[in-house]
Amino acid sequence: MIGGSYAKGLTKKGYKVSAIDTDKETIQYALKNNIIKRGTTEVDPEMIGSADIVIFALYPHIFKEWIRDNQQYFKSGAIITDVTGVKGCVVEDVQNMLRDDCEYIAAHPMAGCEKLGIKHSNEKLFYQANYIVVPTEKNTEEAKSVCRHIGEILKFARISELSPADHDEMIGFVSQLTHCIAMSLMTCNHTEKLEDYTGDSFRDLTRIARIDETMWSELFLLNKDALLHQMKLFTMEFSNLERMLMEADKEGIKDMMRRSTERRKLFDKEKVEE
Amino acid sequence: MIGGSYAKGLTKKGYKVSAIDTDKETIQYALKNNIIKRGTTEVDPEMIGSADIVIFALYPHIFKEWIRDNQQYFKSGAIITDVTGVKGCVVEDVQNMLRDDCEYIAAHPMAGCEKLGIKHSNEKLFYQANYIVVPTEKNTEEAKSVCRHIGEILKFARISELSPADHDEMIGFVSQLTHCIAMSLMTCNHTEKLEDYTGDSFRDLTRIARIDETMWSELFLLNKDALLHQMKLFTMEFSNLERMLMEADKEGIKDMMRRSTERRKLFDKEKVEE
Repeated sequence: MIGGSYAKGLTKKGYKVSAIDTDKETIQYALKNNIIKRGTTEVDPEMIGSADIVIFALYPHIFKEWIRDNQQYFKSGAIITDVTGVKGCVVEDVQNMLRDDCEYIAAHPMAGCEKLGIKHSNEKLFYQANYIVVPTEKNTEEAKSVCRHIGEILKFARISELSPADHDEMIGFVSQLTHCIAMSLMTCNHTEKLEDYTGDSFRDLTRIARIDETMWSELFLLNKDALLHQMKLFTMEFSNLERMLMEADKEGIKDMMRRSTERRKLFDKEKVEE
Repeated sequence: MIGGSYAKGLTKKGYKVSAIDTDKETIQYALKNNIIKRGTTEVDPEMIGSADIVIFALYPHIFKEWIRDNQQYFKSGAIITDVTGVKGCVVEDVQNMLRDDCEYIAAHPMAGCEKLGIKHSNEKLFYQANYIVVPTEKNTEEAKSVCRHIGEILKFARISELSPADHDEMIGFVSQLTHCIAMSLMTCNHTEKLEDYTGDSFRDLTRIARIDETMWSELFLLNKDALLHQMKLFTMEFSNLERMLMEADKEGIKDMMRRSTERRKLFDKEKVEE
């Protein structure tokens, strides 16, 4: 889904995109719909060696294995980037094992869709979304600039930079904690027929309760410490509200509601579009 | 917003709607835009006495006060209904104090919008939403049928019935708990510039963090016991996930993700539209 969305956006801008995917149907679909120029299900040394930029959309551990096993095919001077959802456990390892004549610069497109596969890919997904370049001290200005430029080509609304540690803390909060909350909300109450009564609030808070267990369980565990820290922050705030309710502290509850309302204004999409 | 949406839907279907609102501009707007036929900012005995059905869209305690002070103006045989978000603390009290020749049948339209006021009223809000009739033993079949019919006229997607106790438990879960979660998520982390990095998950989970503190603090406290019970259920499930993360119990996490994904399917809006 994300790889296909990248391919669509890049092809549309005139870039020559070649793709490797283990799934034959995905490659056939991408070729047939002119999403890519060339495609294969095998590691193709000639195809890899012809690429100036290689973008990885893989599970973190498979990404690392692939680099270990196949980096000898990269063109000298190639820029490697990715879309991986956690960085601490990936960036340093990949930079350490990579050949000196190539450069890996990490990136994270903050856009997703609960439906998987190339048929749900959509380059418009990025137009209102944030894109984060995640460099380390090892990265050159040139590679950072190439990586930012990919975000510009794909028309992300906002491009910024974070260190791997800051990225993982942020992602533990805005993405992983929200998924933990959605899952817990979805599974904590077994009352039947709730779907006959519910309003949109519950639907909004559980959209992401539909979750790919293979990918997300890996992402959670790879970012365990940051995520547990964010869960703790949330639990403390939630317990505080619980206490105010128990004590019928109306003014305290109202104050929290005002702070919540005020802070939420920062996150309006309209603001991003300006 | 909700009162105006009712008025729009009913007027569109040819019903003659009169309205009382303390805000002069609201009444002027409603008259000018043909949302209502008659309107006033005062308690008008003649207007009240001419209504076959009276629908209240008020804060719970103001609704009760209004009934206490003005019920003498109702036409004999009038049906009284409402849109109040909690029922236990309202239904019995109002039924007990109401004249014997009128009948109060409670209802709850499960639709809302974070923007307030008649200018944001929209009868289409109801087309995909749930509508709940909340009768007690005191209600007649006729009044229940009138109340359901209002839901049909307003084109709600699904109409059902719950007792006041079941309603309040359900609302404690799908509506109030979700608001508590959204508020806690919005106020638990003060990191700056998060809006530059976030994706849609966080936006979805905090849409309702923009919250009218006067109304919601009242609704929370009026349904305190049911809400605290639901908060407890959620906290237990969330702690369980926290524990699995600490123990790196990947299979346990995956199992919870599968259950979450499966249960979420019930709540798809497409299903409601069928």
